[in-house]
Amino acid sequence: MTPIGYVRSPYREKFAVPRQPGLAARVVSELRLDPPYNNPDAFRGIEQYTHLWLIFGFSLVGGDEVFRPTVRPPRLGGNSRLGVFATRSPFRPNRLGLSAVRFAGMKKNSGELSLFFAGGDLVDGTPVYDIKPYIAFSDSISDASSGFATDPPARARVEFSKESECFLSELAEGDYPCLRELVADILSYDHRPAYRSCADDGRIYGVALYDLNIRFSYGDGRVLVVSIEKLKSDQS
Amino acid sequence: MTPIGYVRSPYREKFAVPRQPGLAARVVSELRLDPPYNNPDAFRGIEQYTHLWLIFGFSLVGGDEVFRPTVRPPRLGGNSRLGVFATRSPFRPNRLGLSAVRFAGMKKNSGELSLFFAGGDLVDGTPVYDIKPYIAFSDSISDASSGFATDPPARARVEFSKESECFLSELAEGDYPCLRELVADILSYDHRPAYRSCADDGRIYGVALYDLNIRFSYGDGRVLVVSIEKLKSDQS
Repeated sequence: MTPIGYVRSPYREKFAVPRQPGLAARVVSELRLDPPYNNPDAFRGIEQYTHLWLIFGFSLVGGDEVFRPTVRPPRLGGNSRLGVFATRSPFRPNRLGLSAVRFAGMKKNSGELSLFFAGGDLVDGTPVYDIKPYIAFSDSISDASSGFATDPPARARVEFSKESECFLSELAEGDYPCLRELVADILSYDHRPAYRSCADDGRIYGVALYDLNIRFSYGDGRVLVVSIEKLKSDQS
Repeated sequence: MTPIGYVRSPYREKFAVPRQPGLAARVVSELRLDPPYNNPDAFRGIEQYTHLWLIFGFSLVGGDEVFRPTVRPPRLGGNSRLGVFATRSPFRPNRLGLSAVRFAGMKKNSGELSLFFAGGDLVDGTPVYDIKPYIAFSDSISDASSGFATDPPARARVEFSKESECFLSELAEGDYPCLRELVADILSYDHRPAYRSCADDGRIYGVALYDLNIRFSYGDGRVLVVSIEKLKSDQS
């Protein structure tokens, strides 16, 4: 298995991917193709498709190669065990991920070739193994269902400190599309382990998005964005 | 990359896969899981889903490892070249295939574990690398489209010789569900290379389905099923 290229996206960690598809859909990511796949001929006709599949590697999943048959999916509160093949968890054999994305164009630049896409949940640096056109005839099964509750998870109110509001107002909007909405969406879902998530624990947490470090805390029934700052260059 | 198991299906070659999804949907295939993936815990909860994704290897594609950026898809008549990433051709980097199938149950039998599925286009012996639940919320994009003509390909009338009718009538129906309909569907699409497909060439062709060899010819504007016979044991 050889990656055909690597993703550049604002999501520096899995937690930073927005859960609202509508918001993620406004963020454009880039797949930089490696030789010999950076040949425009290999993409002839792809502009005819509105959507694509990406098959990628869960590169952030660490080196534990022992097969674990069950996982605890966050959407079930982190306390129920399901078989790994009944989930989309990254902790799975062969570490393969699958996402449908919207095709957003190709760009050729002096020998480099990039494919742009919107939506999807691929973190920065993700290796991609294949691109396939999305064919509604065979791929869209609108009546596919699952017996699991599909209620959206509970969400908290998100507030911004004066310092973070000030930082946001000084950013060039074009460089960080929908940043305020993205931050509010991401932080509204409690990402802490289930056994700890009921407590206002007073700790300051951080999440990396684009080249920014977003610092926040839980308290008084809401999430407070304490500060937003540029990551130091060795972190970005 | 390690296969989690291998497929047992009636399709002994790519050409034998029916093109009518309705017919393929009536044929049940089996995925025999290899250790350590033959652990029922790894499938806990999978019965909650109606449909699954299989990520598999195009095992019939030969050893030519040179990257070819374009292919000639049969649905475009075999005469137009498209970029490999604008097609679902098996002749692609990493040889990965993707199919949505209907979940049809699990079966445990003295340490062996099998997953059954209906639909899909996986030939017998296909290695499977991952199983994921189909989640309509993210996977079903009913308005995904392509600019390519999606007219179904032209089909020929299929007739059965007396000999083949006789053979069909003696088969146990339960062992070969929908066999007559499958054969008629498969053969109605001309599988010959485009440069040759206009001619009634008088040759006898063969296709393997289940443990049967179906022999047929083109002529007088229709396909004639000449004979159906059991494959010799070293072929099945």
